[in-house]
Amino acid sequence: MFDSVESAAADACLAPVENSLAGSVHINYELMMLHQFHIIAEVELRIRHCLIAAPGVSINDLHAVRSHPVALAQCRRFLQAHPALRKMVAEDTAGSVRDIMINDVRDEAAIAGEHAARVYGAEILAEGIEDHPQNFTRFVLLSPTDFIAEDADKTSVVFSLPNKPGSLYRALAALALRDIDLVKIESRPIEGQVWEYRFYIDFLGSTRETNVQNALNHLREITPDLRVLGCYKRADRPI
Amino acid sequence: MFDSVESAAADACLAPVENSLAGSVHINYELMMLHQFHIIAEVELRIRHCLIAAPGVSINDLHAVRSHPVALAQCRRFLQAHPALRKMVAEDTAGSVRDIMINDVRDEAAIAGEHAARVYGAEILAEGIEDHPQNFTRFVLLSPTDFIAEDADKTSVVFSLPNKPGSLYRALAALALRDIDLVKIESRPIEGQVWEYRFYIDFLGSTRETNVQNALNHLREITPDLRVLGCYKRADRPI
Repeated sequence: MFDSVESAAADACLAPVENSLAGSVHINYELMMLHQFHIIAEVELRIRHCLIAAPGVSINDLHAVRSHPVALAQCRRFLQAHPALRKMVAEDTAGSVRDIMINDVRDEAAIAGEHAARVYGAEILAEGIEDHPQNFTRFVLLSPTDFIAEDADKTSVVFSLPNKPGSLYRALAALALRDIDLVKIESRPIEGQVWEYRFYIDFLGSTRETNVQNALNHLREITPDLRVLGCYKRADRPI
Repeated sequence: MFDSVESAAADACLAPVENSLAGSVHINYELMMLHQFHIIAEVELRIRHCLIAAPGVSINDLHAVRSHPVALAQCRRFLQAHPALRKMVAEDTAGSVRDIMINDVRDEAAIAGEHAARVYGAEILAEGIEDHPQNFTRFVLLSPTDFIAEDADKTSVVFSLPNKPGSLYRALAALALRDIDLVKIESRPIEGQVWEYRFYIDFLGSTRETNVQNALNHLREITPDLRVLGCYKRADRPI
């Protein structure tokens, strides 16, 4: 997906970045570092997971359950209550349903949204199996070309910091001293530099605003590698 | 493991908290919130992964590979280069080798350390398959009773913050304004409070020191729920 955006084979792609129960989708944070793109929008979706199997299969027939690792993490309590279901990592949720139907698998189920059951003609064995109903996933829309909407009010950046006392505090000062609201901070290890970190930060404000431009210039004094991932309209919470 | 420490059924348990390639072991950060214990020490181990199967099995016989999700994440490049190997999540690395040997599985391999192959009489098909040789895991030693070593020089805390501009900046000020070196920050979503976070912070200094006590008192002014997880000697890097 990131490749297809970078090469402009795709006009845009929607990448999940964070779930309110399972936390950040780390692989996508890693891929952000390896690709060029612009975040031009974000969207928040309510996530409701179902246990889905081939028609006629009952939960007692099952030995394993396939899904995306984040979906498995979101259904931890259901899976703990069903220890006979071995967890199998798959590339995505809906694709797990498709694979079960194509291969006529009758001792495995998938965890996916109800829409996937309808599309592939599968059956829902259990609904709403996620740990907590307050389950939302935030996606960002990636584009090969930059576009900043008129009503953009949120900016995402990434940078690394020298490993010295107070460096994160000084970096956050660039925002806090300008009353810019940091809404998310994610630290990821830098490969090959043991216990050093890269910081992904989302804050409220548009790069069209002078105080945001000043904050970014201030951050560039502190970090050698500031990159603005995008400036976009903050998503509304779905009902 | 956390249960056995909380009930004092175990004198101590060693919990992995962070890997220099894969990042934090999130499940253990979640479990920290649900249990009482004291971190009394930490240790860092060099991780070297092997592909391990039953004797006589070749890599071409394999359809899947089992291991702990963090071990699978650490071998992403190897697994990408071997797309025929379906990834299967298991509870731990060495246990995957044991399960393959006990059940005489001949079309699956495990990812684990070489020691596991020796213990269970399995064979190593590939060595050093981790993405990067700078692969270390940090473990903390959990105890039911508090003990602060004379030479303790590192402290771990966890707290939540009100969702208002500058709150993280103000919390970090409690450390930075006292020249206390923050070495790790981890934000985890708070269940049921969408896009609110709990912060796990490690810093250098002992709770025996007055400036650390002052910093903790300062943090208590900012957060409603500061908890000191432990104060212990920082681990040496293994060679």
